[in-house]
Amino acid sequence: MGSSDSHQTWGGRFSEGPDARVAAFTESVSFDARLAAHDIRGSIAHARMLARVGVLTDAEFDATAAGLEAIGERIRAGDFVWDPALEDVHMNIEARLTEDIGALGKKLHTGRSRNDQIATDIRLWLRDRLDALSAEVARLRAALVDLAEREADTIMPGFTHMQVAQPVTFGHHMLAWQAMLARDSERLAEVRARVNRLPLGAAALAGTTFPIDREMVAAELGFDSVIDNSLDAVSDRDFAIEFVSAAALVMTHLSRFSEELVLWMSPAFGFVDLPDRYCTGSSIMPQKKNPDVAELVRGKTARVNGHLVSLLTLMKGQPLAYNRDNQEDKEPIFDVADTVMASVALYADMMPHVTVYADTCREAARQGFATATDLADYLVRRGVAFRDAHEIVGQSVQHAIRVGCDLAELDLATLQGFSEHISADVYEVLTLEGSVAARDHIGGTAPAQVRAAAARARHTL
Amino acid sequence: MGSSDSHQTWGGRFSEGPDARVAAFTESVSFDARLAAHDIRGSIAHARMLARVGVLTDAEFDATAAGLEAIGERIRAGDFVWDPALEDVHMNIEARLTEDIGALGKKLHTGRSRNDQIATDIRLWLRDRLDALSAEVARLRAALVDLAEREADTIMPGFTHMQVAQPVTFGHHMLAWQAMLARDSERLAEVRARVNRLPLGAAALAGTTFPIDREMVAAELGFDSVIDNSLDAVSDRDFAIEFVSAAALVMTHLSRFSEELVLWMSPAFGFVDLPDRYCTGSSIMPQKKNPDVAELVRGKTARVNGHLVSLLTLMKGQPLAYNRDNQEDKEPIFDVADTVMASVALYADMMPHVTVYADTCREAARQGFATATDLADYLVRRGVAFRDAHEIVGQSVQHAIRVGCDLAELDLATLQGFSEHISADVYEVLTLEGSVAARDHIGGTAPAQVRAAAARARHTL
Amino acid sequence: MGSSDSHQTWGGRFSEGPDARVAAFTESVSFDARLAAHDIRGSIAHARMLARVGVLTDAEFDATAAGLEAIGERIRAGDFVWDPALEDVHMNIEARLTEDIGALGKKLHTGRSRNDQIATDIRLWLRDRLDALSAEVARLRAALVDLAEREADTIMPGFTHMQVAQPVTFGHHMLAWQAMLARDSERLAEVRARVNRLPLGAAALAGTTFPIDREMVAAELGFDSVIDNSLDAVSDRDFAIEFVSAAALVMTHLSRFSEELVLWMSPAFGFVDLPDRYCTGSSIMPQKKNPDVAELVRGKTARVNGHLVSLLTLMKGQPLAYNRDNQEDKEPIFDVADTVMASVALYADMMPHVTVYADTCREAARQGFATATDLADYLVRRGVAFRDAHEIVGQSVQHAIRVGCDLAELDLATLQGFSEHISADVYEVLTLEGSVAARDHIGGTAPAQVRAAAARARHTL
Amino acid sequence: MGSSDSHQTWGGRFSEGPDARVAAFTESVSFDARLAAHDIRGSIAHARMLARVGVLTDAEFDATAAGLEAIGERIRAGDFVWDPALEDVHMNIEARLTEDIGALGKKLHTGRSRNDQIATDIRLWLRDRLDALSAEVARLRAALVDLAEREADTIMPGFTHMQVAQPVTFGHHMLAWQAMLARDSERLAEVRARVNRLPLGAAALAGTTFPIDREMVAAELGFDSVIDNSLDAVSDRDFAIEFVSAAALVMTHLSRFSEELVLWMSPAFGFVDLPDRYCTGSSIMPQKKNPDVAELVRGKTARVNGHLVSLLTLMKGQPLAYNRDNQEDKEPIFDVADTVMASVALYADMMPHVTVYADTCREAARQGFATATDLADYLVRRGVAFRDAHEIVGQSVQHAIRVGCDLAELDLATLQGFSEHISADVYEVLTLEGSVAARDHIGGTAPAQVRAAAARARHTL
Repeated sequence: MGSSDSHQTWGGRFSEGPDARVAAFTESVSFDARLAAHDIRGSIAHARMLARVGVLTDAEFDATAAGLEAIGERIRAGDFVWDPALEDVHMNIEARLTEDIGALGKKLHTGRSRNDQIATDIRLWLRDRLDALSAEVARLRAALVDLAEREADTIMPGFTHMQVAQPVTFGHHMLAWQAMLARDSERLAEVRARVNRLPLGAAALAGTTFPIDREMVAAELGFDSVIDNSLDAVSDRDFAIEFVSAAALVMTHLSRFSEELVLWMSPAFGFVDLPDRYCTGSSIMPQKKNPDVAELVRGKTARVNGHLVSLLTLMKGQPLAYNRDNQEDKEPIFDVADTVMASVALYADMMPHVTVYADTCREAARQGFATATDLADYLVRRGVAFRDAHEIVGQSVQHAIRVGCDLAELDLATLQGFSEHISADVYEVLTLEGSVAARDHIGGTAPAQVRAAAARARHTL
Repeated sequence: MGSSDSHQTWGGRFSEGPDARVAAFTESVSFDARLAAHDIRGSIAHARMLARVGVLTDAEFDATAAGLEAIGERIRAGDFVWDPALEDVHMNIEARLTEDIGALGKKLHTGRSRNDQIATDIRLWLRDRLDALSAEVARLRAALVDLAEREADTIMPGFTHMQVAQPVTFGHHMLAWQAMLARDSERLAEVRARVNRLPLGAAALAGTTFPIDREMVAAELGFDSVIDNSLDAVSDRDFAIEFVSAAALVMTHLSRFSEELVLWMSPAFGFVDLPDRYCTGSSIMPQKKNPDVAELVRGKTARVNGHLVSLLTLMKGQPLAYNRDNQEDKEPIFDVADTVMASVALYADMMPHVTVYADTCREAARQGFATATDLADYLVRRGVAFRDAHEIVGQSVQHAIRVGCDLAELDLATLQGFSEHISADVYEVLTLEGSVAARDHIGGTAPAQVRAAAARARHTL
Repeated sequence: MGSSDSHQTWGGRFSEGPDARVAAFTESVSFDARLAAHDIRGSIAHARMLARVGVLTDAEFDATAAGLEAIGERIRAGDFVWDPALEDVHMNIEARLTEDIGALGKKLHTGRSRNDQIATDIRLWLRDRLDALSAEVARLRAALVDLAEREADTIMPGFTHMQVAQPVTFGHHMLAWQAMLARDSERLAEVRARVNRLPLGAAALAGTTFPIDREMVAAELGFDSVIDNSLDAVSDRDFAIEFVSAAALVMTHLSRFSEELVLWMSPAFGFVDLPDRYCTGSSIMPQKKNPDVAELVRGKTARVNGHLVSLLTLMKGQPLAYNRDNQEDKEPIFDVADTVMASVALYADMMPHVTVYADTCREAARQGFATATDLADYLVRRGVAFRDAHEIVGQSVQHAIRVGCDLAELDLATLQGFSEHISADVYEVLTLEGSVAARDHIGGTAPAQVRAAAARARHTL
Repeated sequence: MGSSDSHQTWGGRFSEGPDARVAAFTESVSFDARLAAHDIRGSIAHARMLARVGVLTDAEFDATAAGLEAIGERIRAGDFVWDPALEDVHMNIEARLTEDIGALGKKLHTGRSRNDQIATDIRLWLRDRLDALSAEVARLRAALVDLAEREADTIMPGFTHMQVAQPVTFGHHMLAWQAMLARDSERLAEVRARVNRLPLGAAALAGTTFPIDREMVAAELGFDSVIDNSLDAVSDRDFAIEFVSAAALVMTHLSRFSEELVLWMSPAFGFVDLPDRYCTGSSIMPQKKNPDVAELVRGKTARVNGHLVSLLTLMKGQPLAYNRDNQEDKEPIFDVADTVMASVALYADMMPHVTVYADTCREAARQGFATATDLADYLVRRGVAFRDAHEIVGQSVQHAIRVGCDLAELDLATLQGFSEHISADVYEVLTLEGSVAARDHIGGTAPAQVRAAAARARHTL
C-alpha cells in the first residue's frame, strides 16, 4: 500500500500511504460492503442527474450506468473482490468502475462527496429494512389477535407484583402485547418519514459548485424531500438514533413478553408449551426442554439498548460537520436491524403454535383471593364507601388465610361477621367467570370486550 | 405508623405496619407531590363521571369536587403538609379529602386504582411540559433564524475532522442547528400524540365492575382517545421512554452546539463572544471568563442519556401488569423535563446576544486551503475527470505547504505546472466569496440560499 | 446579584453579574452543601499546612480553624443559610468565614483553587461512604451465611432456563449470593484505595507558586498518597466512575436476588415469605401483599446503571484540565451512594426474617425430572459413555412425560428397557437426598459442602 | 437437521429437531469458535483429571488428548469445518473428536456441562487478552514518559473551560495521560485476579456426582483458585462486566486524549502534527489531512460504553443459575477486547512520532492572560489577602482587555494604579518561564518536577 495508485481517492497531498495498522483500523469495507446495492442505486441516480444538468453526456451516463449495473450483478453473484486498501464500499466500486469502463469512471464523483454519499446509502438501506420490519411486526400482531380470539374465554390470573391480582382472560393478555406492538408500528412509520429525506447534494459539507438538481435525484430514489441544509445533511445521525430507539422499544416489548413465556413454561406455572422445534436441550441434563428463543430475545434486548447508548454517545460531542467518529454508526445500525428483524419474525412464527393449558391457568387464578376486589365492589354497590369496603375485605382475607381457605369457601355467617351488607348473592361475584364478565367496558377483560377489541385490532392491520 | 388508621388504603389484611426503613424506601410523595394539580384534575373528572353513571349522587360530586379544589388551593398556597406515611400524592390528597368532607371522601376511589390513577396523572403532567417545551424549542429556532439572517454573508471556515474544509457562511451554520431542532419539534409532537391517551378505567389491571364511561373522562381531560387494553394501560411506560428519547436528541443537538460555542469562544478560535452575564469566572484565575452555560448543557446531556438507560433498563424485564419497579419512572421523567426545558430556554435567551467576530472568522477560513475543492471543480469544468483533478490539486497543496503559502498565492506558472487546463481566471474561484457564492442550490451555503432557507424556516414556525 | 460584593470570588474582571436564569442553572450549592463537613475538614488541613510553610501565622491559623469549626457546628445544627448566589459550598463557607473572622478569611484560598478543593471534598466524602457501605455489605453477607447454615439441608429445585434442572439446597443457593457480594467487597476495597489519594495542591491545574507541603496535608486527612500530576488531579473522575461501576455490580446482584424473591413469593412458587412489615398492599385489591422492597431494589438498579452511563458520557469528550461539565458528577455519585446503601441495608435487615417453606421447595424439586442427570451419571459408572447415557435418559424422560409420571415411578423393567445396565439400585440415585449428597466436592451442593463453605465464608468476614 | 445423530448432545428427549430459523438464531459457533484453543486446553486438563480420579484410564486420556491436540492443530491450520447445526464450539469439537477417536470421545463430557465449560473457556481467553493488553498499555505509558522528557521544557497553555488558564509544560501534560493509564494498569491487574478463578467442576449448576479434583484442574490451567459455589460459578459474569468497565476507562482516557489531538492538529491550534501514515485524506477535498485514528478512537469509545450497558442490562434480571441470555455476553467481550487492544496499540505506535510545534504552543500561552494568577500570588506574598489580590488582578485584566494588551505590557504606573504593592520586580512573575518554574512542588508543572515525575513513572513500568 501507499502508492497513489492504490490510494487514488486522496493520495495527491500525501507523501506516504497509511501505516498497515492504521489501514486496518480505519477501513470500513468489511462492514459497509453490505450497502453495495444501495450505493450503486444512488450512484446511478446521481449520474443520471449529472447528465441531465450537462456535467456528463448521455453516452457517458449510459456507459456509467451499465458499468455500475454490471458491478452490482457481480456483487450479487458473489463474484467481487473487496479490497480493504480501498477503504470503503464507495471506493471499491468506483475503482472497479474505472477499471471496467476506463477514465470515464473518474467523473462519477463530480459534485458529491463520500460524506453525502454514505448518508444517502444508509438511508436507502434503512428504508428497506424499516419496510420489511414493519411487515413482520404486522404479522406478529395478526398472530396475537388470532390467539386472543382463540383464547377469549380462557381464564388466567392477572398479576401485579407477581401476586395474583384479579382474573383476566388469556385473550385479553395477548391483546396487551398487540397494543404495544401497534404503537411500535406507529413509531416505525414516523421514523421512516424522517429517514426518507435526501442528503445527496450536500457534498462534503457546503454543497457543490455544479448546477445539481437535487429534487430530480430525490424523485428518482423515492425520497419524500431533500434535506434543506448541507451541514445538517452530512452530520445528521438523528435518523439512526431514532431507529434504534424505536427498535429498543420493540425489543423491550418482546423482552417483557419473553419474561412471561419463560415463566409460563416453567413447571411452577405450566400455563403454556411450545413445540420442540422452538426449544433446545441440555448437554448434561437429559430431561431439559428450554425456551431458548425467548431467553435469547430477552438477552438481545440488552444488545439493542447498548447500541442506542453507543450512538447517542457517539454523536454527543461532535462539532459540525463530518467527523470520522461517524463511521462507527453503521455496525450498530446493521446489528440492530438484524436483531429486531430476527426476533420479531421468530415470535410471529411461534405464536400460532403456542399451546395454552386452560385448566392450569384457571386453577392458578383460583389462588390468591383473585376476586377480593369483586367483593369490595359488591359492598360498594350495597352502599359501603370504597375505602371501608376495602378494609372489610382485607380483614376477611386475613381470616381466610388464617383458616386456610378461599373467600368463596367461607360460609355466609362468617362473611356477614365482617359486614352486615353481605347476603347470599355474594357468591356470584366471587366466581372467576363472574369476575371477568363484570369488567365489561372498553378496555376491560370481559370476553365480549376481548372479542370486540380483537376485531378493532384486526381492522387496523 | 402501622395502625390501620394511618394506612387506611390497604391496612385491612396486614398484621403489622411497615418497618420505618421500608416506609422511607418505598414512599414516593417526596417526588410525586409534584403531580398534585394533575391528580386533582383527574380525580374531579373521575368523580364527575361516577356521578353521571350513578355511582355518586350529584350532591356527592359537588362536595367531592369542592373538597378537592380546596385542597388544590391549599397546595398552591404552600399550605399543605405532606405525610410520607401516606406513601404517595394520591393517598395524601384522599386522606385529607376524607378529613375535610367526611366519609364521602372514601367513595372517590370507586372504580379506579392507583395504577391507572398514576398513569393518568403523569400523562397529564407530561402533556403540559411537552407543550411548554415545544414552545421554547420554537423560540430557540426563531432566534437561530434571526441570527442566520443577520450573519448570512459572514464567511467562516466549515470544518470536517476539525480541519478547515471549505468556506461556509455563519448563517448557513446557524440554520444547520435550526434544522436539527425542527426535527425535534416533529418528534415532540409525535410523542405528545401518544402521551395523550387515557389510561383511567383500567383500574388495577383488568378494568372495573362499575359501569364507567371512559370516553366522557377522556373528553373532559382533553385526551384524544382511551387506551384500548387495561393491562397495557397500567403497565405501559413507552410514552416516558419516547419522551426521554426525544429529549436526548434535543440535548444531543444542544451538546454539539455547545461544543462549538466552547471552541469558538476559546482564544484559539475567537469567533464569538457572549455577554458577561452568560459566563462565570474562576476562584483562582482572575482573568477567566468561562462559557459555563454551554459546558453545563454539554454535561447535562450525559444526565439525560443516563435517564434514558434507566427507563429502558427499568422496563426490560417486567412481566405484566404493574410492578413496583415502575415507581422509579417518575424521577427520571421529572429531571429530564426540567433539564431540557432549562437548557433550551437558556439557549433561546443567549442566541440574540451572541457577538460574531466576522474578521476572525474570515481570517480562519483563509487557512487550510479551504478553496482547494473549488480548484478541483474548476478543472472538472475544463474537462478533467474529477479523480484526476483531485490528484492534481492534492499535489498543488503539497507544494504550497512546502513553500509556505496559500493556493491563491501560487503564481500562474506554478499552478500551470500542475495542470495545463489552468488559466488566469482560476484566481476567481480561489476567493472565499467566490467559493460560497458558487454553492448556489437548495441546501448550499451561498448567501442567497441561506436567506431563502431562513425564510422557509420562519414560515414553518 | 451582580455586584462584586456578592461575587467576590471572581467579580473583578466582569462588567455585569450573572443573569438570574444563568445563576439558577449553574449554582451547585443546592446539592454540594452536602459536602460541607468534608469541605471544612479539608480547609482546616490546608490552613494548618499554610501555617506550617509560613503563608499564615499560627495565630491566623488558629482564628481560621476556629472560624471554620464554628461554621461546621452551625451547619450541623441546621442553623446556616445557604445562598445560591454564592454558587457552591466552598464560597458559601468562605464568605461566611470572612464575615465572621474578618479579612483573614480572604487568605484561606491561598495556594488552592476550587478545582482541587472540590476534588478533595468529594474524595473525603466518598471514602466515608465506601467504609459505611462495606460494613453493610459485610452485614448482609453474614446474614446470608446464617441463613445458609439454617437451610443447609433444605432441598429446592435448582433452575436453569427457569426449568427444573437438578436439586440443590437452599443453603447452597444462599451462598451463591454471598459469593457475589464477597467479590463486591473486594471491589469496594480496591475503589477505596484509588479514592484515597490527595488532589489538593494541584490548584487550578498547574500547581501553585506557594511552597506547599502536600504530604503533610495528605497525612492529616488520612490519604494514602498524593496525586502525582496536577492536571490529572483536577480532571480525574475515574474514581467516581469506578465507584459507580462497583455499585452497579452490587445492585445487579441484589436485582437478580430480588427477581428470585419476587418469584419465590408468588403463589406459583410459594418457596418463601416475608413479614408484613417488609411488604405493602394495594389501594384497590384488599388481598394483596406485595414484595415491594425487592421490586424497588430491582427498579433502582436501573437508576444506578443510568448514572454510570451519565458519568462515562460526561467524561468521554473532555479535554484537560477542568471543564464545568464536571459539576454534573456530584448528583449521580450522591444518588448512587444513597441508593446502594439503602438497598443493601434493607436486605441485611430482611434476610434473618425470611421464612422458608421447606415442604413446598422440596415438592417443587420433585417436578421436572430433577434427577435425570443422576441417572445418566449412574449409567456412566456402569460403563456407558456419557453421551450415550444422556441419550438413553432423554428417551426415558420422553416416555415418562408420555405416561405422566416421574422417572422414579417407572418400574424396573421399563427402565431396563432403555438400558440393560440399570439394576434395582438405580432408585437410590433417583432420590432428591441422594442427588444432593452425591455432589460432594468443593463448590458442590451437598449439605456437608454447604456447611464447610459457610464456615469458610464466615471466616473471611 | 432434527435427527438425534446431528443433535447427539441433547436429542433424546425431543420429538423433532430445531426449526431452521431457531437454529440460526440460537447457534453461537459463528463467534465462539474463537475460543477453540482455550476450549481444547480446558478439555485436556479436564480429561487428565478424569484419568487421575479413575473415570478414564490412562490410555483413554492419552487417546483423548492426542485427538484434541490434532483437532487444535487442524483449527490453527484453518482446516476445520464448523457446523452451525452443532450449535457451538464445544459440540463441534466433541463431535469431531468422536468421529476421530470413536466412542471414547463420548466420555469426555463426564462430570462437566457446557455451562461450566464455557465459563472456563472465556476466562482462559480473557486472561490471555488481559495480559496482552496490559503489555500494550505499558508500552504506551513508556512512550508518553519519553515524550514528556523530550518536551519537559516546552511551554503551552494549560486550559480550563477551553480558556487559557495558566502556562504548563507539554511534558507535564503528557504525564497527566500517563497517570490515567497507570490507574488503568492497576485496574486491569485487579480484573485479572478475579478472572483467574476456575469455574469448572460446577457442571450444570450443582456440581457433579463424580469424584472430581478441581484443585488439580486449577493448577494445570494456571488458575489462582477454584470458585467456591457451583451456582455462582456458572452464572457469574461479573468478571466480564468488570473487564468492560476497566476497558471503558482506558477508552475514556484515549478519547479525551484524542479530543486534544484533534484540536491540537486543527489549524486553530496547530500545536502538533502526525506523520502522513497516521492520517487519511478526503475523497473530495484534496487538501485534507485528517487525524482519523484519533477520531475513530473517540468514536470507538462509544462502542465500548454501549457494550458495558449491554452486559449490565443482560445480567440485571436473571435469576440463578444459567439462562440462555448469557450467550449474549461473548460478542461484547470479544469486540471490547479487540477495540481497546487496537486503540492502545495504535497510540503506542504514534506517540514517538508526534511533532510538537513548540513556538506555536508558546505563542498560544501568551494569549489569555495566562500569568494573571502569578500576579495575584505576587500580591499575596506582599501581604494582600488572596481574595483581594484576585479582585485587583481581575480589574487589571479588564483594563488590559479594554486597551488591547497583555498584563506584562501594562506599564508599571498603570499596574501600580491597581495596587500600591506592585513594584518593578512584578514583570519577572509575569513571564511564562517564571510562571512554570515557580510551580515547583510534587505534582507541579515546573520542568524539574516534570523530569522527576517522569523518572518515577519510568521506575514503576
